[in-house]
Amino acid sequence: MKTIGVKASSSYEIFIERGLLKNSGRIIADTVKTRKAAVITDDIVDGLYYNILEESLKSEGFSVVKFVFKNGEASKSSETLNNIYTFLCENAITRSDCIIALGGGVVGDISGYAAATFLRGLDYIQIPTTLLAQIDSSVGGKTAIDLPCGKNLVGAFKQPACVICDPDVFSTLSEKIMSDGMAEAIKYGMIRDEKLFDLIASHNIDNVNEVIDEIIYKCIAIKRDVVENDEFDTGERMILNFGHTLGHAVESYYNYETYTHGSAVAIGMYMITGKSCDDTILSKLENCIKAYKLPCGCDAETTELVKLCGNDKKRESSSINYIICPTIGNAQIKKVTVDEFEKFILN
Amino acid sequence: MKTIGVKASSSYEIFIERGLLKNSGRIIADTVKTRKAAVITDDIVDGLYYNILEESLKSEGFSVVKFVFKNGEASKSSETLNNIYTFLCENAITRSDCIIALGGGVVGDISGYAAATFLRGLDYIQIPTTLLAQIDSSVGGKTAIDLPCGKNLVGAFKQPACVICDPDVFSTLSEKIMSDGMAEAIKYGMIRDEKLFDLIASHNIDNVNEVIDEIIYKCIAIKRDVVENDEFDTGERMILNFGHTLGHAVESYYNYETYTHGSAVAIGMYMITGKSCDDTILSKLENCIKAYKLPCGCDAETTELVKLCGNDKKRESSSINYIICPTIGNAQIKKVTVDEFEKFILN
Repeated sequence: MKTIGVKASSSYEIFIERGLLKNSGRIIADTVKTRKAAVITDDIVDGLYYNILEESLKSEGFSVVKFVFKNGEASKSSETLNNIYTFLCENAITRSDCIIALGGGVVGDISGYAAATFLRGLDYIQIPTTLLAQIDSSVGGKTAIDLPCGKNLVGAFKQPACVICDPDVFSTLSEKIMSDGMAEAIKYGMIRDEKLFDLIASHNIDNVNEVIDEIIYKCIAIKRDVVENDEFDTGERMILNFGHTLGHAVESYYNYETYTHGSAVAIGMYMITGKSCDDTILSKLENCIKAYKLPCGCDAETTELVKLCGNDKKRESSSINYIICPTIGNAQIKKVTVDEFEKFILN
Repeated sequence: MKTIGVKASSSYEIFIERGLLKNSGRIIADTVKTRKAAVITDDIVDGLYYNILEESLKSEGFSVVKFVFKNGEASKSSETLNNIYTFLCENAITRSDCIIALGGGVVGDISGYAAATFLRGLDYIQIPTTLLAQIDSSVGGKTAIDLPCGKNLVGAFKQPACVICDPDVFSTLSEKIMSDGMAEAIKYGMIRDEKLFDLIASHNIDNVNEVIDEIIYKCIAIKRDVVENDEFDTGERMILNFGHTLGHAVESYYNYETYTHGSAVAIGMYMITGKSCDDTILSKLENCIKAYKLPCGCDAETTELVKLCGNDKKRESSSINYIICPTIGNAQIKKVTVDEFEKFILN
């Protein structure tokens, strides 16, 4: 088993191993003092993996209660959150007990936010079941829900007590959801690690499973390094937003329906790289994006997308931060006015 | 002007002076970088003090937007919170801007919670307008909303950027609301400072205004000391709950309608002191409570109140923490099982 330690405001371990889900009870028992767990999951993951988790927890003496909500981003709402709070009240979950998030990014984000806020905070464990969640959303302590006026607009920084990654769970993921995660893996290569980029670029969506364990490990290690340096996202952590400023605009323009997060980030990475790099790098990125059946562009007018960037929650008053990678493996943060950003993209 | 510095996860100043509200803009301008403020208040305080605050902010170059909700505990809900989030979205409040809580405990708690969670946190300033809010809820960074299943069940630790206390605003408070705050002042004396207790005990609700500035200063200084030692409420901070375990049960038993928080705490302090002190101390406490027109008991059966203590959010699994003051000025934390607590109270 591989482990990655994260030293943040609270420190924790990320455990990575194929087949780990069936031993997750042992890891959780070693991590928390309580033997009472509230598992939060969605209706798809519930049918696939809940029984394995429950059995593993019960064999370690846990009493387990479960809350299941409908899968999909629409559930990352204050309504689901209130239902979770009611469930935690009804099951008499105390500050000494723990929440376990079993699922993808939506499950992890809303469960983590519930754990950050219910009784002003209790322990939670992330068991991410998608590639995107394993390499991105489950690590680093960002938790959130969406508002009608935008995604992730309400949230908290709350580090998990541990993260349990079992790459075997990808066997039930669709190609589209794997591609979604690979966009973030490509991002990690672009911002920090040319060798990782080359490893990804030398494979494609059909054969990446051969090297996915190494990719997961390297991506998480990069995220760990960045988060340790800037837990609360006021500096270096912004480099994780490479492709995201325009990516969020793409998602928003299409009402989060046409493009997955990863697809939108792929478009965002390609657009910003087209404005800041020579053709050699742009062409490498394009080939890599296409090898994972991700898009390099969309039908939306660039002017419309740039307008939406002005509403990004990362915006600080009249300025905007965006990320470029002048060479593969090296990210730079650019802080400009909204007007300057418009000129940069539209020129 | 008196100031008290608080060194917590983020450090800040508490400013105390009569007439300070009309100069609050200057203090806020010195505290935050932004010149855009979102004021949150209730319909009573809005009519009394908003104009003074707005004028002071505008004279320092602030643009100001305002959100007003109906006064009272019933507004400390997820519904009001969602309305606040929508208001912040619609007014394009960013992470660099600030929220100003102008009002009593309900306003401070929900505004602070909105500031802790909107965009994962932005600065907020407390301008508490009740005695209870000035000496208790505005200091220490506890923010919260209520759930249908209980009070303050959802919240965050979020220290304000500064706290502005103007005792002149008490001129518009009813006697009942002043009494409500005096119960917490008596608590500070009981847990930490016999001289403060004696100062309070040598006055009454009709003449306490003569020494209220000194009482406010001493109470806040005690709270500051306790919060600095235990910001996240895992040890010493629990002494602030003297009278609160049973007090919360009284509030809950009467559906938060019959007794104010302070009245319920007075009952709680008297009940627990009756179980843990000799008659001299109990009699001193009784006289002091009565001098501020607060109650020493209620009609609810003690067995019923003890049952409700088992649901307290401070409970850790099967154990409960309660506070006694064997002598005035000295608090002790007792950790016992729920059963042991029942026996202690009912014997």
